[in-house]
Amino acid sequence: MSLVVVGSMAFDDIETPFGKSNKIIGGAATYIALSASNFKKPIKQISVVGGDFPVEELEALSNRGVDLEGVQIKKDKKSFYWSGRYHMDMNTRDTLETQLNVLGEFVPIVPESYQDCEFLMLGNLLPEVQLSVIRQLKHRPRLIAMDTMNFWMETAADDLKKVIREVDVLMVNDSEARELSGEFSLVKAAREILKMGPEYLIIKKGEHGALLFHKQQVFFAPALPLEEVFDPTGAGDTFAGGFIGHIARSKDISFENMKTAIVVGSAMASFCVEKFGTQRLQEISQDDIDERIQEFVQLVNFDIALI
Amino acid sequence: MSLVVVGSMAFDDIETPFGKSNKIIGGAATYIALSASNFKKPIKQISVVGGDFPVEELEALSNRGVDLEGVQIKKDKKSFYWSGRYHMDMNTRDTLETQLNVLGEFVPIVPESYQDCEFLMLGNLLPEVQLSVIRQLKHRPRLIAMDTMNFWMETAADDLKKVIREVDVLMVNDSEARELSGEFSLVKAAREILKMGPEYLIIKKGEHGALLFHKQQVFFAPALPLEEVFDPTGAGDTFAGGFIGHIARSKDISFENMKTAIVVGSAMASFCVEKFGTQRLQEISQDDIDERIQEFVQLVNFDIALI
Repeated sequence: MSLVVVGSMAFDDIETPFGKSNKIIGGAATYIALSASNFKKPIKQISVVGGDFPVEELEALSNRGVDLEGVQIKKDKKSFYWSGRYHMDMNTRDTLETQLNVLGEFVPIVPESYQDCEFLMLGNLLPEVQLSVIRQLKHRPRLIAMDTMNFWMETAADDLKKVIREVDVLMVNDSEARELSGEFSLVKAAREILKMGPEYLIIKKGEHGALLFHKQQVFFAPALPLEEVFDPTGAGDTFAGGFIGHIARSKDISFENMKTAIVVGSAMASFCVEKFGTQRLQEISQDDIDERIQEFVQLVNFDIALI
Repeated sequence: MSLVVVGSMAFDDIETPFGKSNKIIGGAATYIALSASNFKKPIKQISVVGGDFPVEELEALSNRGVDLEGVQIKKDKKSFYWSGRYHMDMNTRDTLETQLNVLGEFVPIVPESYQDCEFLMLGNLLPEVQLSVIRQLKHRPRLIAMDTMNFWMETAADDLKKVIREVDVLMVNDSEARELSGEFSLVKAAREILKMGPEYLIIKKGEHGALLFHKQQVFFAPALPLEEVFDPTGAGDTFAGGFIGHIARSKDISFENMKTAIVVGSAMASFCVEKFGTQRLQEISQDDIDERIQEFVQLVNFDIALI
């Protein structure tokens, strides 16, 4: 039984107050797979790249236990490209350029060897592509988690609602939760979104942490207070990777275990932002991860017996 | 040994997207005392009001165990008055009018019966007034906590730094921490501020919770996700009251116990914002408080054994 990850693989060109990245490897599926591969192998990846995507980057993923059979390589085309600039507060960014390239006509094909999918992570992508993957799976996965963004709410609302109806866990950020629900209060927004289909809703608040809603229950995990957020690109995807990686490793889809998965995801995201692109994710060891998770425990742990 | 609270007592006139309060009772010391009186009695209050301050409001405080010997009543003068308007996100507000009135010439007098002060909470007020209270105490309290605001950083920076040097716990919000330190990163800001004197720094982030810094340690407590924040006025003071109230009750000034105190403060603040002014604080019972603190435990509790 396996973990299948769907999403973009891309070139990113990032500018922050601390410097420029130049053209580096990015994309939702790249971050998700790099993050999740610390917890579960293999990761079965579904994506598309152009002939310009470096072979050594594909090999590096492969070496980390990412199965690329579902990654289409369009030799004569160019990979998805995104460039953006972050402002001083690192919570807002401007997109400078988007070239869809191969992503513009992407029709995902689920390989036969992926049909044992137990956990499915739909990274941010056209809702139509996300839906197509769900439809191609002969058996419904035990858990489908999905990330999306405001862009699809504005350009593909109907398709988006169809996917949302099919998934168990939806991940959005705070402003997207407000946009999707039409409610300003996140508690009210969560209640409305849970009516749209998902059993679980994760609202990501960047440096302000993440909320998990399920029925009447709510859980909160902070982000680690960092000296410097160097580059937030991919933090949400890295969070998703840690989350689904922990779930796939533990095979436990209870609310209690999702709380832990959120802490694991937050820990992974806290690494991601420390350097440009995927650099930090490529460096870290299992010990680094264990240590960071302990920092999260320390960060929120208090002694209720004293009250 | 007692808990002494210093701060303004005022009339507030509040406008939020949900309505207008008209002229109601407010002021830092009022909120702090109302909040702290749930944990420790008596509260020995130092403040000043005009002849227009309602006797029944003073009696109500008195009935809750607030000793008003240190509250000067200037019969021929008017009480401090503030009016403000909150925006939709409730994190920003405009001051519409400030009338200092009796506060403009306030010279605090510490009654002899307050000389047993073990815990001192300096609510947001002129740094000069805060300093005067410290100077009048013959024995240094075991713990001095202080709240302040950006206004004093801009108009009384020298006095402010003098007080900060004398206190054990400083409370500011995130933008004030940035302004005081000249650092954008809150981790770096905390490091700079801890060099200015205090052993402990609490950075309040409103709906995004609060951080406690001490040496190399950091603790985070979230704010309770609420359906609606009705009126944030006094939330920071109510937090301070819960914090110092818990410390004074437990007589434990360890870092571990300060974490608990922050959770207690956050719980109290979550009540404050549910109605206009002090209304909700006047209604709640010990059971309500216990229940709310349990909600905070549930909100952040996760099972580390599963990782």
